[in-house]
Amino acid sequence: METKIVECVPNFSEGRRPEVVQEIAFAITSIPGVRLLDQTSDANHNRSVLTFVGEPNAVKDAAFMAISRASELIDMEKHSGEHPRIGATDVVPFVPMSGVTTEDCVELARSLGQEVADKLHIPVYLYEEAATCEDRRNLANIRRGNYEGLKQTISLPERHPDFGEPAMHPTAGATVIGARNFLVAYNINLSTSDVSIAKKIARRVRASSGGLMYVKALGIMLEDRNLAQVSMNLTNFAKTPIHVAFNMVKTEAERYGVSIVGSEIIGLIPMDALLDAARHYLRLESFSRQQVLEARIWE
Amino acid sequence: METKIVECVPNFSEGRRPEVVQEIAFAITSIPGVRLLDQTSDANHNRSVLTFVGEPNAVKDAAFMAISRASELIDMEKHSGEHPRIGATDVVPFVPMSGVTTEDCVELARSLGQEVADKLHIPVYLYEEAATCEDRRNLANIRRGNYEGLKQTISLPERHPDFGEPAMHPTAGATVIGARNFLVAYNINLSTSDVSIAKKIARRVRASSGGLMYVKALGIMLEDRNLAQVSMNLTNFAKTPIHVAFNMVKTEAERYGVSIVGSEIIGLIPMDALLDAARHYLRLESFSRQQVLEARIWE
Repeated sequence: METKIVECVPNFSEGRRPEVVQEIAFAITSIPGVRLLDQTSDANHNRSVLTFVGEPNAVKDAAFMAISRASELIDMEKHSGEHPRIGATDVVPFVPMSGVTTEDCVELARSLGQEVADKLHIPVYLYEEAATCEDRRNLANIRRGNYEGLKQTISLPERHPDFGEPAMHPTAGATVIGARNFLVAYNINLSTSDVSIAKKIARRVRASSGGLMYVKALGIMLEDRNLAQVSMNLTNFAKTPIHVAFNMVKTEAERYGVSIVGSEIIGLIPMDALLDAARHYLRLESFSRQQVLEARIWE
Repeated sequence: METKIVECVPNFSEGRRPEVVQEIAFAITSIPGVRLLDQTSDANHNRSVLTFVGEPNAVKDAAFMAISRASELIDMEKHSGEHPRIGATDVVPFVPMSGVTTEDCVELARSLGQEVADKLHIPVYLYEEAATCEDRRNLANIRRGNYEGLKQTISLPERHPDFGEPAMHPTAGATVIGARNFLVAYNINLSTSDVSIAKKIARRVRASSGGLMYVKALGIMLEDRNLAQVSMNLTNFAKTPIHVAFNMVKTEAERYGVSIVGSEIIGLIPMDALLDAARHYLRLESFSRQQVLEARIWE
């Protein structure tokens, strides 16, 4: 039986008082079974991002504890910072990692939204996969006007929250909760210093100009190595796998007489994404992740 | 920090009384942190194989408990069966799985051997990677004459055990303990029904006829699919990786105008073996297993 794992990456409007961020981290790790993987603060943005994982309900409970603690420790009336934001806990995405679907994460987002509105009296907006209308899929639309602007406009029908009363919490503002797919940051280095070739390949491979559905891509120059690079975000590795992006970049590069000198995965990647690549290149028939020893031991 | 994992696959001279095998299984799982993955009994051979994993010292303790319990429940004076054997617990291999070396497993084998001889008064032979002389690397040499024969010859200097007195335990006989590498069973299916091509490729790819150092291979016919298959054992996937075997079979097959229609991994495989394949085909630069989300969560 496979363990269900959800990742949660909440953003808090505090990046200058480490002791406050630490209190929020304690609130998260107070829930058994939840593991805090990363914690990053930015003083300019006055904002912190915490990354944690665990089983769905544990992750939801930890997110609630964090939102609750943040509402006690952060006063949006005194907050300043570069980054767009509408609340003490600004945005809370749930990401399906293993044994769960995007739909499961949408369900988590809705359930947490209801709880936050009911118990903490913070109005909640749902975004991305959890959005209740097309306009709210995009986080930027929900944050329009920032905390200060939303205080004035939240009473307008089109800006009413998905959960809670159409009025800001006096100090914690409002919170955006949602679900999105795991994002794989994947870069491919080319045997050329001509960045225009990387840009042409990027254009061919990305969704926005007719390429692969779940690929965002840019051509950039790695000055220190004098190499051009196709820098990609794979927004749904189950539907557009890494090896499909790799093979397409390889084929497009050949058109210019250029080859792939290497590639890099930035940050974390789910095991399944790499098993898919092994499955493809080794032409594996009926291989199951349950054959991976570590999956058998740990799940 | 990476968890250390060792696999242990002891063979017991009992395959007809399930209740006895169950008692031995209980002895193994009585050690916290040890996970029993498989349990197979053969009535003809009158023999059972148990597979379990865990941290090195826990696995060693579980192996000791199992050997101790088997010595109470199995009487070699009454044992009959097809398979070669010299004791109630016949052979105990330790296999490095994750974060441990073969040398660590050799150390475990020696330490367990000493303990079994001291506390249970069962003579112990070390084999394969743990062998104290070239002749004892091969299990067949140690088991020569079986239980019945060894009772007579154990007092001869060349057959003295590595640990304990040169005399059989009155009911439990003697035990072979050692360390070996993980064995990956990997088969490649060809686009031909001509088994002679699979046999020629097998000859080219296996160590015994000049091929890859850690590959054993046979050409066989899959009658139900009317396909020829190169059936391989990879005895050290770190030194001769799966993708190297795959690529060599592919190249040799091309020589006959034959292609690879698929491949299969039989049973369990360590995650690292598949990460190596992904690393190779995606040309990954500086990828670490710590980037695999599950490794970060579970280790």
